[in-house]
Amino acid sequence: MARHIYSCPLRWSDMDAFGHVNNVVFLRYLEEARIDFMFRLAPGDGSPSFSGGSVVARHEIDYVRPLVHRHAPVTVESWVTKIGAASLTIAYEIKDPDQVYVRASTVVVPYNLAEERPRRISAEEKLFLQEFLAEEPAAV
Amino acid sequence: MARHIYSCPLRWSDMDAFGHVNNVVFLRYLEEARIDFMFRLAPGDGSPSFSGGSVVARHEIDYVRPLVHRHAPVTVESWVTKIGAASLTIAYEIKDPDQVYVRASTVVVPYNLAEERPRRISAEEKLFLQEFLAEEPAAV
Amino acid sequence: MARHIYSCPLRWSDMDAFGHVNNVVFLRYLEEARIDFMFRLAPGDGSPSFSGGSVVARHEIDYVRPLVHRHAPVTVESWVTKIGAASLTIAYEIKDPDQVYVRASTVVVPYNLAEERPRRISAEEKLFLQEFLAEEPAAV
Amino acid sequence: MARHIYSCPLRWSDMDAFGHVNNVVFLRYLEEARIDFMFRLAPGDGSPSFSGGSVVARHEIDYVRPLVHRHAPVTVESWVTKIGAASLTIAYEIKDPDQVYVRASTVVVPYNLAEERPRRISAEEKLFLQEFLAEEPAAV
Repeated sequence: MARHIYSCPLRWSDMDAFGHVNNVVFLRYLEEARIDFMFRLAPGDGSPSFSGGSVVARHEIDYVRPLVHRHAPVTVESWVTKIGAASLTIAYEIKDPDQVYVRASTVVVPYNLAEERPRRISAEEKLFLQEFLAEEPAAV
Repeated sequence: MARHIYSCPLRWSDMDAFGHVNNVVFLRYLEEARIDFMFRLAPGDGSPSFSGGSVVARHEIDYVRPLVHRHAPVTVESWVTKIGAASLTIAYEIKDPDQVYVRASTVVVPYNLAEERPRRISAEEKLFLQEFLAEEPAAV
Repeated sequence: MARHIYSCPLRWSDMDAFGHVNNVVFLRYLEEARIDFMFRLAPGDGSPSFSGGSVVARHEIDYVRPLVHRHAPVTVESWVTKIGAASLTIAYEIKDPDQVYVRASTVVVPYNLAEERPRRISAEEKLFLQEFLAEEPAAV
Repeated sequence: MARHIYSCPLRWSDMDAFGHVNNVVFLRYLEEARIDFMFRLAPGDGSPSFSGGSVVARHEIDYVRPLVHRHAPVTVESWVTKIGAASLTIAYEIKDPDQVYVRASTVVVPYNLAEERPRRISAEEKLFLQEFLAEEPAAV
């Protein structure tokens, strides 16, 4: 089972007035990792694949430990926990080698932007996603 | 049982390249509603209350319907679904009178910034929160 | 000579780790005021007017005084200092009744998104803009 | 004369509803480059240097060419065009090897956060800045 590893650069402005990376900004880090995974790596980049449109249906996110801005990127590790007919679930950890900051999961629905409606996952996409398919992580 | 009503202005830049309010931005709307509820309304504003520090421990968020930028604000309705010894859970709906865009909930932990550790909810805070205490909404 | 008055709500997240509204965020306030002025008020809303596309060619912005988040909105006052054949210049002050936080100006170029090229200002647009035309403010 | 080179990663969310990197976001790229230059590289990092506080007094920014999100970072080249007693001016180009997207300059005022007032540039800071001192670029 493979995991998608995304090295996510921080921005100084990711911190809020309390001097920590703001809780909402971690969702941006997940978005960046997801786009790298689903738009850049997934089959059909530039053609009718996920980059042609996808919609977030749900997020769950647990904040384990605060993060302060630094020059080194943080790692977002992603994998797939469910492949449905017309949706998939991605799980993530935002972490350094020695500690975890955030655990999260997202339900994504592939979307046909032209026809403005959800669409099914193709056989080609399913093959790609299965490489990253794994059990849910242990409870937070 | 009272609900906290926050009229949340949109910004044009809340839309992403797909032309909808981006999924991450809805968490900003929840933050604005929560800050109005916990910093402005809650007792002890300016003194050792929630505005003295609080940490988000968890979000769950379901996207029901897309939202496009418009000049009128959107309503964020908030209430309390759980009051623990050292945490509380807020539920929200982001909506117009005739439809719901987002349902969400957040676990918040009051935090003593000076001592850098979580703290218990005070009796005064509990009284305030109980006015907004209600059952969980029906399943999404 | 009229001025366009925009009442701009702040967000808590507009503050950076120094506890002030971040310098970049003031450009968002200008964007909101400009969109209200050019997209909502200008003639042809919904038809081939500024809302059909416009490009920022230049900003100048002077920071006069820091601003901290509060629940009351801040005022953005806008007017027009130049109307060219294919560009216009908007000047602004971000202020409260008794003090100014920011003085700025923006060169905007109307843009034909479909043809991907700048276009001339129409006679109808010019008439609208002339109501707001004034001399440059005194030097900052 | 040295130039400070900053390799600036884009985020997908930097694009607005027109599908280009939003004009305001380029100021974030300048901020990231400036922070790398003044907080990380400048002398006294962690001690009473620029990282102890600095305030933006003015930006000028010219948009030369639109930029669309891609996985490769964009280059921000920075240098110093003026060193005053209590302010400095930084000039920048945001560019790829073969084209320029943005030309800009920022007046920065070193600030003593504890005493809440501007302060003079130290001799040590001046020495550091002089390595990057150059004439203004040719007019845009």
